[in-house]
Amino acid sequence: MSASDPSAHLLETFPNPHPKRDYLIEHHVHEFTSLCPKTGQPDFATIVIRSVATERCVELRSLKLYLQSYRNRGIFYEDVTNVILDDLVRCLAPRWMQVQSTWTARGGIHSVITAEHGRRS
Amino acid sequence: MSASDPSAHLLETFPNPHPKRDYLIEHHVHEFTSLCPKTGQPDFATIVIRSVATERCVELRSLKLYLQSYRNRGIFYEDVTNVILDDLVRCLAPRWMQVQSTWTARGGIHSVITAEHGRRS
Amino acid sequence: MSASDPSAHLLETFPNPHPKRDYLIEHHVHEFTSLCPKTGQPDFATIVIRSVATERCVELRSLKLYLQSYRNRGIFYEDVTNVILDDLVRCLAPRWMQVQSTWTARGGIHSVITAEHGRRS
Amino acid sequence: MSASDPSAHLLETFPNPHPKRDYLIEHHVHEFTSLCPKTGQPDFATIVIRSVATERCVELRSLKLYLQSYRNRGIFYEDVTNVILDDLVRCLAPRWMQVQSTWTARGGIHSVITAEHGRRS
Amino acid sequence: MSASDPSAHLLETFPNPHPKRDYLIEHHVHEFTSLCPKTGQPDFATIVIRSVATERCVELRSLKLYLQSYRNRGIFYEDVTNVILDDLVRCLAPRWMQVQSTWTARGGIHSVITAEHGRRS
Amino acid sequence: MSASDPSAHLLETFPNPHPKRDYLIEHHVHEFTSLCPKTGQPDFATIVIRSVATERCVELRSLKLYLQSYRNRGIFYEDVTNVILDDLVRCLAPRWMQVQSTWTARGGIHSVITAEHGRRS
Amino acid sequence: MSASDPSAHLLETFPNPHPKRDYLIEHHVHEFTSLCPKTGQPDFATIVIRSVATERCVELRSLKLYLQSYRNRGIFYEDVTNVILDDLVRCLAPRWMQVQSTWTARGGIHSVITAEHGRRS
Amino acid sequence: MSASDPSAHLLETFPNPHPKRDYLIEHHVHEFTSLCPKTGQPDFATIVIRSVATERCVELRSLKLYLQSYRNRGIFYEDVTNVILDDLVRCLAPRWMQVQSTWTARGGIHSVITAEHGRRS
Amino acid sequence: MSASDPSAHLLETFPNPHPKRDYLIEHHVHEFTSLCPKTGQPDFATIVIRSVATERCVELRSLKLYLQSYRNRGIFYEDVTNVILDDLVRCLAPRWMQVQSTWTARGGIHSVITAEHGRRS
Amino acid sequence: MSASDPSAHLLETFPNPHPKRDYLIEHHVHEFTSLCPKTGQPDFATIVIRSVATERCVELRSLKLYLQSYRNRGIFYEDVTNVILDDLVRCLAPRWMQVQSTWTARGGIHSVITAEHGRRS
Repeated sequence: MSASDPSAHLLETFPNPHPKRDYLIEHHVHEFTSLCPKTGQPDFATIVIRSVATERCVELRSLKLYLQSYRNRGIFYEDVTNVILDDLVRCLAPRWMQVQSTWTARGGIHSVITAEHGRRS
Repeated sequence: MSASDPSAHLLETFPNPHPKRDYLIEHHVHEFTSLCPKTGQPDFATIVIRSVATERCVELRSLKLYLQSYRNRGIFYEDVTNVILDDLVRCLAPRWMQVQSTWTARGGIHSVITAEHGRRS
Repeated sequence: MSASDPSAHLLETFPNPHPKRDYLIEHHVHEFTSLCPKTGQPDFATIVIRSVATERCVELRSLKLYLQSYRNRGIFYEDVTNVILDDLVRCLAPRWMQVQSTWTARGGIHSVITAEHGRRS
Repeated sequence: MSASDPSAHLLETFPNPHPKRDYLIEHHVHEFTSLCPKTGQPDFATIVIRSVATERCVELRSLKLYLQSYRNRGIFYEDVTNVILDDLVRCLAPRWMQVQSTWTARGGIHSVITAEHGRRS
Repeated sequence: MSASDPSAHLLETFPNPHPKRDYLIEHHVHEFTSLCPKTGQPDFATIVIRSVATERCVELRSLKLYLQSYRNRGIFYEDVTNVILDDLVRCLAPRWMQVQSTWTARGGIHSVITAEHGRRS
Repeated sequence: MSASDPSAHLLETFPNPHPKRDYLIEHHVHEFTSLCPKTGQPDFATIVIRSVATERCVELRSLKLYLQSYRNRGIFYEDVTNVILDDLVRCLAPRWMQVQSTWTARGGIHSVITAEHGRRS
Repeated sequence: MSASDPSAHLLETFPNPHPKRDYLIEHHVHEFTSLCPKTGQPDFATIVIRSVATERCVELRSLKLYLQSYRNRGIFYEDVTNVILDDLVRCLAPRWMQVQSTWTARGGIHSVITAEHGRRS
Repeated sequence: MSASDPSAHLLETFPNPHPKRDYLIEHHVHEFTSLCPKTGQPDFATIVIRSVATERCVELRSLKLYLQSYRNRGIFYEDVTNVILDDLVRCLAPRWMQVQSTWTARGGIHSVITAEHGRRS
Repeated sequence: MSASDPSAHLLETFPNPHPKRDYLIEHHVHEFTSLCPKTGQPDFATIVIRSVATERCVELRSLKLYLQSYRNRGIFYEDVTNVILDDLVRCLAPRWMQVQSTWTARGGIHSVITAEHGRRS
Repeated sequence: MSASDPSAHLLETFPNPHPKRDYLIEHHVHEFTSLCPKTGQPDFATIVIRSVATERCVELRSLKLYLQSYRNRGIFYEDVTNVILDDLVRCLAPRWMQVQSTWTARGGIHSVITAEHGRRS
């Protein structure tokens, strides 16, 4: 697992109000943007986070602020997808989590990265 | 299971007219609204309730009034989805029930929460 | 199984012209209407009847008249779905039958009820 | 199996040009019409015939003429679907055949009938 | 397998550039036309050819010319589908090949013929 | 495996930032063009590259430049699809990779070529 | 103008809250049903009522009850469309009103009736 | 023009940054809700506000808070549409403004109200 | 007209290659982002620029860099739309230009701003 | 009008077979590609040519070869659109002609250029 991202402290949690039940939580983030680490140009993506929680849930406004912290940082598609997964896993210790990023086209190429932690069932 | 919600007394039931048969009941609630517990701002969702009943069915007008009781209360997405499930389970003792809430976007993020009780087949 | 509905005598049948073959019959009824048993207000639904017959098939005009008999009667969604299934089962003794009713929205809630008799294969 | 329909003699066949290979033949008939046996009113349907042939294939113009022979005859949905299947089975002895008729709405009800002969694989 | 079609000599091949790997080749032919053997009327079809090659691949321009050779010939749907499959199999010796022809409507009837050679996996 | 393409040196890689996790990387290339080796006419394709990496990921701008190197070269559909797969496999040593090319119509025929290396799970 | 319909007394009004401004009011009624005056069979329609008010607006629940009063009455499409217009005009004295009824198909025919009172601009 | 709504003080403005140019401003409000003045039941609408400004523009967060002030107030569709128009006109003195509200169905009826102030061109 | 934006110097032009002909140039910018001047939160928009040039055209990469300069600046929707129009008008002196910005929803409200300079025909 | 493009000699014409009637001719070119004059990177466009001819029509294969001559040339969107129009106008002297080019996105911006010669009616 990667080292913790500096902005990970922005993530806030609240107690899973129903920890005895395995239920599915999906957050669809439509406005993610970061910078290309080679050219400094902006990248844009939709990010979907699916999970089954244990003791903690992520607070949505803190998730938004955490994801906004990438706005002016240069980072590869593959890296940011896994770092988001790692930061959320460290923070929430979910039973299962999947992060999927879909990036707008650059030079006629668009990319999709999908990473998982744990097992869903 | 969570403590009973104060508005749970609003739920009325009628005898399942055909308790010897396992059949599927779906209610799609298009106009749910509650408040964000952190900001007090309104949240909006569609809620789908699927179940196989045992002895009792929920009366629809009472279901509407029960769900309207959340209109001015602050509650997290994850919590309200599970509380609705718990209140209906206590009231109806269904063989199986699923509650799924789909929330309109806030800050460019939209969420879907899905919780179940019992086994469908 | 519920007691026979008074209008069940309206149902007419004709001999299954091909009783030795298991084949699938579907009737989609787009204009069903009945009354709410609590408020007396009209309800509207689409009803789909799927079956594998044994000796008898339902005559379509009689099915239409039978279903029209609910026009001015107060009956719950769950009840009418099962009563239609029971009346048709008593009348036709099908190998398998499914009745599914999809109701237009009331107070922002729309419902779908699905009941079966026997096994399809 | 039903008695042979009087118009079945209209069906012409030609030798399956490739009898050693099991391959799939589908005919979609978009303009079938017959009469209701109770009211004399016209009925309209789409009929799909799927089969794996043995020694003979049906000639398409003869199939069209055969199906047109129902234009002025009163016959139930369930009957005509099975009679077409029986006539084609007698004429072609296919390894497998399915006949599916989809009827336009009458009195707000539309119907679909599906019958098979033999096993596909 | 049918006798070789006179136009089969039009088919040209080139060495499979990667014979050690099983990979999928699909050609979708949108403009096939032949004549009805009974009426002389033009028929139109889309033909899809899927295959896993061994040593040879079909050259596309030669495939186009080969298929154009049917333009003024009377041949049944079932026959031409299988003859194309046979000619290509003789010419290419593929590990697996499927030919599927979808014909435009005639007299309100449209047809689909599907034939295979060998096993895909 | 084919000999290395002269332009393969254009491919640049960066270390897989998360080599301990098997995750899915997809690149969709919407603007590929090469020449027909027989006629010299331009061909156009969409190319999708799916992989699970081991130690290295392909840098996107270098992938774009590598694919642009085919702009003025004559090469068969089947060949270029496999050569791209081979060059990327040699360069990245992925656990699994699939290359799929979908070509615009020529003479009324459009083609799809799909090749894989390794096993996905 | 036709004689007042017996159910017209069901219509209730409230003062136009903004009588000095000409503004457009549209009500779309999705669940209208009446009976055919010749066969007694149910008819189903969507009715759209567009108007520019003067001193009074129609109260929606009373409009619903008024339209439900046609549920068990036999009346022609053309008649009911004009009677609804007449009753609303007598009750509301609008500057302009249009009533448009769109009926579900009977015997493969569906109808649309449109009547107006006054001038819109 | 109606008396000023008590919540109108919530509306904040900022100087039109380009008052010398006539340009079109549209705000689409997807989550408006108020109460029915007769039954106390919640109503839901989408509201579109189109305008050409003079000296002032409405600040969006204040517009949201102003519209949220109707959440627990009973008011007719026709009234709230005109009151919103009046409050915004008093506050902004636009050259032209249109307010259009589209309400979700109640008892199978949905309504659209459209009011304008001034002339667009 | 507003004072020139500091980033306006980023705009580069090239001579209109065909100044004697009035022709239409449209640029659709799918990835615009700036900050809310009140909350500092990111805003996202699609911006369409339509024009008829006189002596100069805007170079696309410079347009991209100019628009990216708003990435970390707080500015109102109405302002940025007009400032972009003003900067482009000063730089290009077009016969006609229209700038239209469509913003993603904030608090359930989405906005569209449309400003023009000159006359199109 | 611009100087004649060197490749304009590739354009061949044939006599308009019906010069006495004004009729519309459209050619949709889906596979145009040229190079960016600043970066040398490939650009891709769809080009639509609409015209009303006088004495000559363009021969399609020559049009294809003419447009392919831009494959390896650096030229601005605005320029190539007008040059194509000029070359075709010089060659065909049409009563009216429109050339419209729609370019795939670069840096999140896609462009459409539309130029006309003469008057259509």
